[in-house]
Amino acid sequence: MKFEKPVPVQWVADFTGAKLVGNSTQDATGINEIHKVTAGDISFVDFEKYYDKCLHSAATIIIINKEVAYPEGKTLLVTDEPFTAYVKLVKHFRPFEPSAKMISDTAIIGEGTIVQPGTFIGNNVRIGSNCLIHPNVTIYDHTIIGDNVIIHAGTILGADAFYFKRRKDRAVQYDKMESCGRVVIHDDVEIGAGTTIDKGVSGDTIIGAGTKLDNHIHIGHGAVIGKNCLFAAQVGIGGKAIIEDEVILWGQVGVSKDLNIGKGAIVMAQSGVPASIDGGKAYFGSPVGEAKPKMKELAWIKRIPELWEKVYGNKNL
Amino acid sequence: MKFEKPVPVQWVADFTGAKLVGNSTQDATGINEIHKVTAGDISFVDFEKYYDKCLHSAATIIIINKEVAYPEGKTLLVTDEPFTAYVKLVKHFRPFEPSAKMISDTAIIGEGTIVQPGTFIGNNVRIGSNCLIHPNVTIYDHTIIGDNVIIHAGTILGADAFYFKRRKDRAVQYDKMESCGRVVIHDDVEIGAGTTIDKGVSGDTIIGAGTKLDNHIHIGHGAVIGKNCLFAAQVGIGGKAIIEDEVILWGQVGVSKDLNIGKGAIVMAQSGVPASIDGGKAYFGSPVGEAKPKMKELAWIKRIPELWEKVYGNKNL
Amino acid sequence: MKFEKPVPVQWVADFTGAKLVGNSTQDATGINEIHKVTAGDISFVDFEKYYDKCLHSAATIIIINKEVAYPEGKTLLVTDEPFTAYVKLVKHFRPFEPSAKMISDTAIIGEGTIVQPGTFIGNNVRIGSNCLIHPNVTIYDHTIIGDNVIIHAGTILGADAFYFKRRKDRAVQYDKMESCGRVVIHDDVEIGAGTTIDKGVSGDTIIGAGTKLDNHIHIGHGAVIGKNCLFAAQVGIGGKAIIEDEVILWGQVGVSKDLNIGKGAIVMAQSGVPASIDGGKAYFGSPVGEAKPKMKELAWIKRIPELWEKVYGNKNL
Repeated sequence: MKFEKPVPVQWVADFTGAKLVGNSTQDATGINEIHKVTAGDISFVDFEKYYDKCLHSAATIIIINKEVAYPEGKTLLVTDEPFTAYVKLVKHFRPFEPSAKMISDTAIIGEGTIVQPGTFIGNNVRIGSNCLIHPNVTIYDHTIIGDNVIIHAGTILGADAFYFKRRKDRAVQYDKMESCGRVVIHDDVEIGAGTTIDKGVSGDTIIGAGTKLDNHIHIGHGAVIGKNCLFAAQVGIGGKAIIEDEVILWGQVGVSKDLNIGKGAIVMAQSGVPASIDGGKAYFGSPVGEAKPKMKELAWIKRIPELWEKVYGNKNL
Repeated sequence: MKFEKPVPVQWVADFTGAKLVGNSTQDATGINEIHKVTAGDISFVDFEKYYDKCLHSAATIIIINKEVAYPEGKTLLVTDEPFTAYVKLVKHFRPFEPSAKMISDTAIIGEGTIVQPGTFIGNNVRIGSNCLIHPNVTIYDHTIIGDNVIIHAGTILGADAFYFKRRKDRAVQYDKMESCGRVVIHDDVEIGAGTTIDKGVSGDTIIGAGTKLDNHIHIGHGAVIGKNCLFAAQVGIGGKAIIEDEVILWGQVGVSKDLNIGKGAIVMAQSGVPASIDGGKAYFGSPVGEAKPKMKELAWIKRIPELWEKVYGNKNL
Repeated sequence: MKFEKPVPVQWVADFTGAKLVGNSTQDATGINEIHKVTAGDISFVDFEKYYDKCLHSAATIIIINKEVAYPEGKTLLVTDEPFTAYVKLVKHFRPFEPSAKMISDTAIIGEGTIVQPGTFIGNNVRIGSNCLIHPNVTIYDHTIIGDNVIIHAGTILGADAFYFKRRKDRAVQYDKMESCGRVVIHDDVEIGAGTTIDKGVSGDTIIGAGTKLDNHIHIGHGAVIGKNCLFAAQVGIGGKAIIEDEVILWGQVGVSKDLNIGKGAIVMAQSGVPASIDGGKAYFGSPVGEAKPKMKELAWIKRIPELWEKVYGNKNL
């Protein structure tokens, strides 16, 4: 997320109660998670093992829980609670704004677009032309939708990222990460009924042009779905997964977070994808393997009793 | 789908820009997919391997991409793009009609039926008597609901079929098949919260009398569910599946499209049904087998290390 | 469920048409399923194998289909149809009350709580302070929600229990058990978009303080979820399951009814939990086992061809 105008880093330090170390005169221009940062961004890190990655990222301003050596020109904001400081900034720059009516006055809806009754369209939403939004859809604030998009009833775009920091020593253990990312739907997408696409934590959750999603699909925060993909009903995609173009996922497939599915991969129904897989192949199983050897495994399993009998002379279970 | 009144086949040829071959004087009375056609229907075929099936079906008028020999009395409408011609006809005879209010003036709602707030009821919907429709339900145009039906909140009846034709050579690869079928819910059905039942492409998606569906269930286009079935939460049923009477599907079961589950079959939780299965038996696994041998497979798998040790003298992995 | 004021047992007998046996002068103070009963409650039993459990439970008044010996001080209400009598009582004491508007006049909503447009709040609902209820949520009658609770769009709290008695000899085979329990959400809970939590049959479905639920989750009737649990998207929990504190369930996990998951258990994505499991461990598979041995099974399966070759001299399938 980029700010509307630059903010002096000293202001950020004062606002979060952090100690400023390093360059004290530059401006912050946005706020982003480590995998999305660009120059001018504030990011945060609170685990030593990620210090290096964050300090050497494009982020200009780093909220951190220890004063450490840092690259020339960067600013450290040192505080015991980088997560809390980061969340405070998100809430300041992207405060929740209640809506008084079903379609916000700040929403922009293109020519030829039909919005059916019962649909909620939040603040600063932009919808292109010739779209059809069926009844009882919910479109959270800041969502961007292209042209010729069809969204079926009950679908929800832009709910918060499911992202928490655990504090085992507290009574309420999970601290909520506030999200300031958006959902961005490109042209010619169709989304089925009762599907949910969460907003990104700081970046965008993106559905590429021409992709078709069936009913009851879940797309986690910050996932990036390519062009001309086809996902059947009840598929679930974890946060920040990257699904390249023309991927086909059949019904009830589950995809873990933070991985990559290569272009044109096909994943058979009910399979589970726990880690990155190459494009251009078919997969099956939970966890998935390539479909053909995985199917052969099923045949081999059926042969165990015969093998047992050959070795032991009986096949009693 | 049957037309309100017969349409001269010559008009159909002119409207779709197809070349008329064969009987030029008869009328079209409806439009249907190949597995649903009756006499008088227009159907379409664009793969040579299905030519015979379509030409010898009950369809009277066949939109086809090649001029071929045809049975006496039929009419061919020859065009390079039968799919596009068919979709154009569906859009003409079943145009989308936006709704200005939550309950359409053309909806007919029976005596004793309660409709809770926030529920959308589209054009030409018919609901029987003594039903209870909970809040925030969406009932698309043309849906038919019997008597004594309970529909819980957030459920969606009649969203479009998830059915596309792929065109790999185009930028937007998936062409949408417009649906003109309906959802038909028989008497004494109960449908849980957040369930979706899609309309058929040309025929109806049917839920038989006395069937009970839990929450988050997906029923694909044109599926036909028998009487007194019981489906637990998060079950998914593919398009045109036929589920006979008294079938029990436990939670998260997935059923592929275009298959048959016999009367009284029971499928255990999380199982996947990729092809037709007989009635009267219990099933388990993904893909399913009969429950007892499938359970034994699990026990055999646990014995592999012992067998390995017997053969190799160790069980190191 | 407890009644607003005690009811003479003779009235209950007359109302249900049952024969009163035993103490005829005491009062009924509530109505409950066998696993929830306390003194003064009416319960019911219609299978001989559960007679003893019910007769020796805390229930004071037992609707039963046979006149049997009973403990001192109890009252039997003998009828051929205990289930039907019980349902008649539930309907009498907890009748369905239609709502004319989106937010019932009898709902109590705490200070600082924001309710977004399109959300339905039923009769006698109580919501605490500083909650945020997003658009198009449905909250059925009698639901109780604590403070600082966030509920995302399209979520449904309090739909009926999916609980039926089968009558194979009738045309409509499934008799509906009416529910009189509630949904109770404790403080600091966050519930994702499109999630459903059903009410209990007579007791409450409870979500413990600080628990975080993602999108598309199903929680069955009467389930009791502990504090600080974390459930990822598309998880399904069966009726009356007890999930202790700090349990983590990853995406698409399925949990059967009537079982216990111990404190701090972690269940990996797509796993299925068919029976109780201990706390403090990680689990995987459908059906689940402990994660490490279950992962090793996958490696052993891949070795079957090698083992076969060692024994048979070839590995042809």
